[in-house]
Amino acid sequence: MRRIGVQEEILSENDRLAARNRQLLEKKGVFTINLMASPGAGKTSLIARSIERLKGELRLAVIEGDIASFIDADRLASMGVPAVQINTGGACHLEAQAVAQALSRLSLEGIDLLFIENVGNLVCPTSFDLGESSKVMVSSVSEGDDKPQKYPAMFQAVDVVILNKSDLLGICPFDRDPFLRSVRQLNLGVKIFELSCLTAAGIDAWIDWLREGVDEMVAIRRPPESGGCS
Amino acid sequence: MRRIGVQEEILSENDRLAARNRQLLEKKGVFTINLMASPGAGKTSLIARSIERLKGELRLAVIEGDIASFIDADRLASMGVPAVQINTGGACHLEAQAVAQALSRLSLEGIDLLFIENVGNLVCPTSFDLGESSKVMVSSVSEGDDKPQKYPAMFQAVDVVILNKSDLLGICPFDRDPFLRSVRQLNLGVKIFELSCLTAAGIDAWIDWLREGVDEMVAIRRPPESGGCS
Repeated sequence: MRRIGVQEEILSENDRLAARNRQLLEKKGVFTINLMASPGAGKTSLIARSIERLKGELRLAVIEGDIASFIDADRLASMGVPAVQINTGGACHLEAQAVAQALSRLSLEGIDLLFIENVGNLVCPTSFDLGESSKVMVSSVSEGDDKPQKYPAMFQAVDVVILNKSDLLGICPFDRDPFLRSVRQLNLGVKIFELSCLTAAGIDAWIDWLREGVDEMVAIRRPPESGGCS
Repeated sequence: MRRIGVQEEILSENDRLAARNRQLLEKKGVFTINLMASPGAGKTSLIARSIERLKGELRLAVIEGDIASFIDADRLASMGVPAVQINTGGACHLEAQAVAQALSRLSLEGIDLLFIENVGNLVCPTSFDLGESSKVMVSSVSEGDDKPQKYPAMFQAVDVVILNKSDLLGICPFDRDPFLRSVRQLNLGVKIFELSCLTAAGIDAWIDWLREGVDEMVAIRRPPESGGCS
């Protein structure tokens, strides 16, 4: 009982901070993706492909969550976008407080699209709202087609499922139709994109979805205080 | 502070129960593997290959840890070995208490080799001793070669690292030598097996290691009470 009580307390404090992050990000008009997946499913590669396509067109930034190392932030910073690394020091997910700290290190006025790469984990990140505009998960062909049944909460929590490593269809054992059926059974309204970050096949539809998200965020952004014209 | 206090309390209660599991398993002479990995790295496939090779020779059993579903237990039970499923109902790792309950459902006297398949997660299972004889992790080629740097605690905690999906070397981007170097830097004494559960290449060395473990466990097993011969 005590354990559940403490967990609820942590989650409710997290929700409070996440709401504050969301308010700030909406005010600044930053379309923000909380990107979740198993280790090695291709989160960083997806961000890299997205940067490659959108760099001249949108103002991008990245918050990188990892237990240890600066590998991903270094890789993405080398592509010329602001990248802040959060090292969780053992924790298995990002929390809103760490994201708030990372946001304070970015110039939000100059950002249209922000990727938050969560720790590689199909379980714990599901429970923690970060204040994002949209939750996106990456599942990869090489992980097998039974992941929706085994990790249902993740597939239910997200707005988008990306099936990555489509270049391995036919090489790795993976039954595409049952996978898609299981995803839709768990989450009727979910968007699904099939693509390969390695070859870039199928990436266009994902990029269009990002563009739409940025456009919608601009539309809901609070208009700046007018100086009046009386 | 309060959070850390509760976590320590949980871990110390877990250690107590794990020690009891270990004592029971050693008394019964059951060589027990705690198998950990990312989702989809090949834990169940490795167990299936091991059953295939050892079924006529050793008495095997499996405890399957999953957040939801009975897919893995059903798959392995269909191979004719006793399989107990633990559904953690959302928890991201197995704990010693759930394993104790599962052990009570197995006839330990009739088991030489027990696989405990943990929840697919490279973070949380590291902290929870289950009472196993040996911790083994599976890392797969399709996850990429940077996993040791990103999840060092897991690579440090284990006795064995299995590099699975070796059939994808040359297909997926993966630099073998830096991966092996990183693993050895984190864990000097670790055993490493490179294999493919899909093609069975390289599986023999792993099977020999299991046989040795079972032999050692038999050697440390307490001798049965002698009736005397006076």
